[in-house]
Amino acid sequence: MTLTGNLLLGQRAVAGSRDAIRAIDPATNQALEPAYAGGTGEHVAQACALAWAAFDAYRETALDQRAQFLETIADEIEALGDTLVERAVAETGLPKARIQGERGRTCTQLRTFARVVRSGEWLDVRIDPAQPARQPLPRADLRQRQVALGPVAVFGASNFPLAFSVAGGDTASALAAGCPVVVKAHAAHPGTSELVGQAVARAVKRCNLPEGVFSLLYGAGREVGIALVSDPRIKAVGFTGSRSGGIALCQAAQARPEPIPVYAEMSSINPVFLFDAALQARAELLAQGFVASLTQGAGQFCTNPGLVIARQGPGLQRFIDTASAHLRQAPAQTMLTPGIFNAYQAGVDALAANPNAQAAASGVPGQGPNQCQARLFVAQAEAFLADPRLQAEVFGAASLVVACSSDEQVRQVAEHLEGQLTATLQLDDGDIDSARKLLPTLERKAGRILVNGWPTGVEVCDAMVHGGPFPATSDTRSTSVGTAAILRFLRPVCYQDFPDALLPSALQHGNPLQLRRLLDGQREG
Amino acid sequence: MTLTGNLLLGQRAVAGSRDAIRAIDPATNQALEPAYAGGTGEHVAQACALAWAAFDAYRETALDQRAQFLETIADEIEALGDTLVERAVAETGLPKARIQGERGRTCTQLRTFARVVRSGEWLDVRIDPAQPARQPLPRADLRQRQVALGPVAVFGASNFPLAFSVAGGDTASALAAGCPVVVKAHAAHPGTSELVGQAVARAVKRCNLPEGVFSLLYGAGREVGIALVSDPRIKAVGFTGSRSGGIALCQAAQARPEPIPVYAEMSSINPVFLFDAALQARAELLAQGFVASLTQGAGQFCTNPGLVIARQGPGLQRFIDTASAHLRQAPAQTMLTPGIFNAYQAGVDALAANPNAQAAASGVPGQGPNQCQARLFVAQAEAFLADPRLQAEVFGAASLVVACSSDEQVRQVAEHLEGQLTATLQLDDGDIDSARKLLPTLERKAGRILVNGWPTGVEVCDAMVHGGPFPATSDTRSTSVGTAAILRFLRPVCYQDFPDALLPSALQHGNPLQLRRLLDGQREG
Repeated sequence: MTLTGNLLLGQRAVAGSRDAIRAIDPATNQALEPAYAGGTGEHVAQACALAWAAFDAYRETALDQRAQFLETIADEIEALGDTLVERAVAETGLPKARIQGERGRTCTQLRTFARVVRSGEWLDVRIDPAQPARQPLPRADLRQRQVALGPVAVFGASNFPLAFSVAGGDTASALAAGCPVVVKAHAAHPGTSELVGQAVARAVKRCNLPEGVFSLLYGAGREVGIALVSDPRIKAVGFTGSRSGGIALCQAAQARPEPIPVYAEMSSINPVFLFDAALQARAELLAQGFVASLTQGAGQFCTNPGLVIARQGPGLQRFIDTASAHLRQAPAQTMLTPGIFNAYQAGVDALAANPNAQAAASGVPGQGPNQCQARLFVAQAEAFLADPRLQAEVFGAASLVVACSSDEQVRQVAEHLEGQLTATLQLDDGDIDSARKLLPTLERKAGRILVNGWPTGVEVCDAMVHGGPFPATSDTRSTSVGTAAILRFLRPVCYQDFPDALLPSALQHGNPLQLRRLLDGQREG
Repeated sequence: MTLTGNLLLGQRAVAGSRDAIRAIDPATNQALEPAYAGGTGEHVAQACALAWAAFDAYRETALDQRAQFLETIADEIEALGDTLVERAVAETGLPKARIQGERGRTCTQLRTFARVVRSGEWLDVRIDPAQPARQPLPRADLRQRQVALGPVAVFGASNFPLAFSVAGGDTASALAAGCPVVVKAHAAHPGTSELVGQAVARAVKRCNLPEGVFSLLYGAGREVGIALVSDPRIKAVGFTGSRSGGIALCQAAQARPEPIPVYAEMSSINPVFLFDAALQARAELLAQGFVASLTQGAGQFCTNPGLVIARQGPGLQRFIDTASAHLRQAPAQTMLTPGIFNAYQAGVDALAANPNAQAAASGVPGQGPNQCQARLFVAQAEAFLADPRLQAEVFGAASLVVACSSDEQVRQVAEHLEGQLTATLQLDDGDIDSARKLLPTLERKAGRILVNGWPTGVEVCDAMVHGGPFPATSDTRSTSVGTAAILRFLRPVCYQDFPDALLPSALQHGNPLQLRRLLDGQREG
């Protein structure tokens, strides 16, 4: 479990030769050993060649073998023990308990996808048997299954060094679908990435899979990433990060001779709507819950509540006053990287300098480097509707309250929003009619709608949608969290009049995988 | 049922004011009345505004109401009687029986989607009930369903004036998903388009749906189409046509502030692999079936067999000789438009002038205007691998036989192919092992793989895949024929901790739609 600073090209550890990245402990601004020299175009090509060579065999692994592989990755990550936790804490400034929780989530996620793989439901088997006597033309025997898209490029995210990184949701769902994965590690946590990458590589070996099923690359800047997305052997991309980064990858993917899908999860300010009866009944409780959600993890969540929308009045004033009071007590927290801290500072400085927004409260100022001081601003709806800068994501513990003069203005503000990962409704019984009127708008704007909760906290389960209209993601037809994420990396293939000997087992007449098929228009019991 | 030459903006017939299109009877080169003046940018905006206004209501129509709407469209198309058939024959040069068959297919398709809508399986309901006592954190109640993407722009295709046009597969699947549709009629059959458009508009009225559920636009050139795809209220695009047209729409969709999915079905040469034992046993029969498939409908099918690949030898020579003999008897057939005829001529002239291809046979020369003379060419595999021009689609009854020196060269040729709608294997028992080795390549290259059939003829059923890797389509994750096409126009939304009174009926606790939900990880019986 020693850190080597090497790339992983399949089972081979190789030293890069380009500009190195080095993790920085954001709590101290100290650089951490070792250096990770960047990969070259040749390294990218080697990783993709290995992935391509592995693809046909890996995508046809038996369901149980593939599930065991995912479980073995989880076992190997757990076997890293405190080495992993300590390195992740040092590289991210996140508390130890948070990293431990995230490790649990990461391993649960891998094991959940193992269950999904075994169930085989994702194969979506559809069979229309031959009708040789049909008039005017006979019907052929037609059988459809889902097959893996091909090798997938995964970009680790800064804010979840385990759950959205080397063996995070994108990797787990791609591997579950039968796609080899080439990861570009996030520059903020290369050591954590290497440890997890070694764990995945060990699982590949233990499960006797072709080595190209997994590779891990490093690189400063965007060169390695763009080369990876441009490689003809890569057939899909998973990304969680900034809007500019996601759009750059989408453009690179579209510029290829063969364009490929990009699943980029990018930007969301997660509006929270406070309805009148709820505000009247419990403005103070709402303010407390809001500040807890806003400041959790220094606000470094894709689902952080960056926008609060409500009708002006005494209830909203009580909410603002109480939230301000809580916020003033909120301790400063170390952010993930100096870059994220600087972007946060620039974002709140821009809001503070914007005459359309009034500063309501600030948290406890930071004492050490890279500490996020929570901020709350207030704007009038007219100003919000007129000023697109007020809708820009400020990644961190900053939020804006938009005060509206009427239900109609609340609706206008909602219609004016860009696509979101989440929208939240705080309501009491008396608000149901108002909420119902707003719902069609929110269904068009967000991937997940919550009632009387807070958007931070994303469950890994069958029903989760962590996605949403652009710019929340680049592809609103999917989710990056939850079991439905496997569907992103599949495509349908139809087999017509195949002899049983040539059919994949999922489609054979005897149904050896015991799947619940759609047979002649009827779902099997 | 009089043709007016007007656009349909919802229920309103409006005269365009831009350059007019006029159908041309390709059998006589005579222009047909009336003229269809093109829509303006303002007409496009009005159609999109109506579609947007209709969207929230239409996407929440009850399943039975939406199904009845699809059935009513089919009824109204049938009620057009011979008026429709005669106009379509005049505009396309296709035989009457073909148009009658296509009308049947179109109406069956609409009724099939009515069945799909009623089943509700496409809602993909997933429910993870709350676990308030879970440690360390409780689980919220999470419920997922699929919702419609938004208004869809549909571009009619030239080669199926009914089944891939105004009320064809793209329109049927989008309407089934809950999306209003704005159709840009194909310039080759505006009268057929108007008749069908009037039928759809009557169905909208009979079913008391908001008028914006359907509009129909005309336009010479690409102006109306690009304006339509660029309108912010359009959320997806369906297209069947040329590679250049499809790519132009993809680029317009990506250039929007909010990029949207484009389902463009573009270009495929549908390779047919003839294996040794099959060739030895029945080269003559294969040649006969091949020429019948190649010349059907003057070769104007997306699935036309434009490429034949086999090992050199006496079997292949018998195939080429017999196919040539049949082809020489093949009568010339009128093509759909002068433009398609000219493109076909240019394509076969280029092949005839290419030293890498040898002309093997020509069909009976045409006597009237726009008649397709069938053509067969032969090339050696080395030349095919070296010359990308030999892989260019020639839309019409032309095909190229590629002679290979070994199984390995057959595999190389297969790997060298672009993405395809179909790949066909002609094999006998003795060929099974060779076919099995080729299958992984073909699964990566094509959406449908056939054994001992011919690719023309695309069944509308659950298991069909009419799709495939780029450039066969712009999105290999889907199909444009068959019931799975409804999935193209949906996105998931998750509802967290909703009171029953706010939940859509598909997700309510009492399961009033009686759906087979994925409940706590288990599929309901």
